[in-house]
Amino acid sequence: MNQIIKTVYLNKQDELVIIDQRLLPAEEKEIKLTDKQIVWDAIKTLAVRGAPAIGVAAAYGTYISIRQLDGNRDISVIKKDCMEIIDYLATSRPTAYNLFYALDRMKVIVQNATEFKTLLSELRKSAVQLHEEDIEKSDRMGEFGAQVVPQGARILTHCNAGGLATGGNGTALAVIYAAHNKGKDIKVWVDETRPLLQGARLTAWELNQAGIPHQVICDNMSGMVMRRGEIDMIVVGADRVAANGDFANKIGTYSVAVLAHYHEIPFYIAVPLTTFDLNIKDGTQIPIEERDADEVIRFRGVQTAPLDSDVFNPAFDVTPHSLLTGIITEYGIIYPPFEQNIKEIIGKNYGRVI
Amino acid sequence: MNQIIKTVYLNKQDELVIIDQRLLPAEEKEIKLTDKQIVWDAIKTLAVRGAPAIGVAAAYGTYISIRQLDGNRDISVIKKDCMEIIDYLATSRPTAYNLFYALDRMKVIVQNATEFKTLLSELRKSAVQLHEEDIEKSDRMGEFGAQVVPQGARILTHCNAGGLATGGNGTALAVIYAAHNKGKDIKVWVDETRPLLQGARLTAWELNQAGIPHQVICDNMSGMVMRRGEIDMIVVGADRVAANGDFANKIGTYSVAVLAHYHEIPFYIAVPLTTFDLNIKDGTQIPIEERDADEVIRFRGVQTAPLDSDVFNPAFDVTPHSLLTGIITEYGIIYPPFEQNIKEIIGKNYGRVI
Repeated sequence: MNQIIKTVYLNKQDELVIIDQRLLPAEEKEIKLTDKQIVWDAIKTLAVRGAPAIGVAAAYGTYISIRQLDGNRDISVIKKDCMEIIDYLATSRPTAYNLFYALDRMKVIVQNATEFKTLLSELRKSAVQLHEEDIEKSDRMGEFGAQVVPQGARILTHCNAGGLATGGNGTALAVIYAAHNKGKDIKVWVDETRPLLQGARLTAWELNQAGIPHQVICDNMSGMVMRRGEIDMIVVGADRVAANGDFANKIGTYSVAVLAHYHEIPFYIAVPLTTFDLNIKDGTQIPIEERDADEVIRFRGVQTAPLDSDVFNPAFDVTPHSLLTGIITEYGIIYPPFEQNIKEIIGKNYGRVI
Repeated sequence: MNQIIKTVYLNKQDELVIIDQRLLPAEEKEIKLTDKQIVWDAIKTLAVRGAPAIGVAAAYGTYISIRQLDGNRDISVIKKDCMEIIDYLATSRPTAYNLFYALDRMKVIVQNATEFKTLLSELRKSAVQLHEEDIEKSDRMGEFGAQVVPQGARILTHCNAGGLATGGNGTALAVIYAAHNKGKDIKVWVDETRPLLQGARLTAWELNQAGIPHQVICDNMSGMVMRRGEIDMIVVGADRVAANGDFANKIGTYSVAVLAHYHEIPFYIAVPLTTFDLNIKDGTQIPIEERDADEVIRFRGVQTAPLDSDVFNPAFDVTPHSLLTGIITEYGIIYPPFEQNIKEIIGKNYGRVI
């Protein structure tokens, strides 16, 4: 499938460019990320977001930041600076595993480097490859996922796991795009996804671009729509999947999963294998980012709650694998028993170039 | 308990005054409702909202609108105009039953009238009485409800069922105020309640005024908080309760009820008997108001979704009685079997002056 959105890329001048997702849908504007501080800020403030896209941005960001170093020094000194850049970028956000996966790939290249110029070309090559893999993985997730989308399905998604969230055409939305392209006559329910409205702002924007029928709802409406029998399946992305299939995704995903379970609606996540963290046994060990109260009590400067009220603002929640129907990956769909089947698919395919 | 907020009242000049809830919490401003059109608009646009407060506003609104009629005409002609006013006010919102209850009381007075001046004084007296009953009922719901609030309870509420939603100190919040006043050391989780944020704007504002510890969350966070074991009970209001205990309340209530059920957390509604509609057998027959898409895709003028995306914006949802632990009323708490026990408590007490 053609790439719909250029979320993060190197332009012809070899500069790192992203679409500024903070401004969507009111404004479609690209910005250049010119040094490590700006890359870090862009990830932190969600100008670029979505686990796979964060990975690609961090890989390119490592390359363009290291390119600014003084190469006329001893390689061991340069490598120390490189490691500092990588460690710094790793602090931008804590939950998405793809960030650490991408930076680990960069780290190995730095460790093996013997010469600055070659180091740069290797970093660039690896970042571009990571990006190309992302595109390929999106397409493959789409193909596998579309197989479980019924004809005429009304599909709920939460947050944005689309082209804006990956280097390719998305994870969950890749499934939706593929089902649509196969003429499955689907309709999408879009959870607006408070507080930052990635569903209403980004997913609805993508679906508009793609001409896919959809309806935006507030997060608290999906239960009612399920009860009315108007949701046939749910597919969302994930930011980190533990060894047993428990996963972290955008806050609210857990509530959707419980509601789906209660209404006996199939619930899928779509993730590339790079989102799995086998070092983590189950969901309790996934670090959950808490973000600023301001995101909840103001929207673009408009006050939405008393300024002296206390606020709790977790960016993610963890859903246990018991609420999960299947995990759509670029190597097929994983079904229960998850722990065993995750181990098997990763053992066979992880790190393999598609 | 002293009345905390003057939500709707007749001032010393016998004018109808409300606090404009559309502006809270940023601005605390009273407005006068001077004729039937302005009363209708105030209810429709949620300047005054909450099932019992709508009832009180409609009763006062009937009085001040009828007062403007030309009384020097035949009483039968006047009565026809009165009925038109009442029927018109009844079209302001479809779901809250208290609106129809209050207007029915006014209607009976009109039907029995023989003289304009007496009619006016009777209407005024009945509206004031309805308001005073509301205050008394709030206190009694608070007393009964507080009995089921455990010491140190962390209580979730959705939307606003407080002083701003009634002529008194609320329904669900009356329970919370009473528990707080009894030194139960409670903490309140406040669902912000999209799209119009009655939780974040109104409930948090009330709890601030009352000095009750609370934390505002987005609606999609309550599931995660329940899973962490940090919610001990849920209490909300309701806009209409059917004969079998199914009830309509602010959109999102049904999802909270399912989540509470899954996590085995007690779930209560607090309502005066005037919220029961025994003409309605079960929840499927409760009319659900759908409101303008603009409420979802803009917040006070700030765009939150693509303007050409389709939106679904139901103002209420229906929760089946099977998800309900108990119904807190001014005459005690109703437990299952609901149909039988509702019939009994209403048979004994409905229409009785407290």
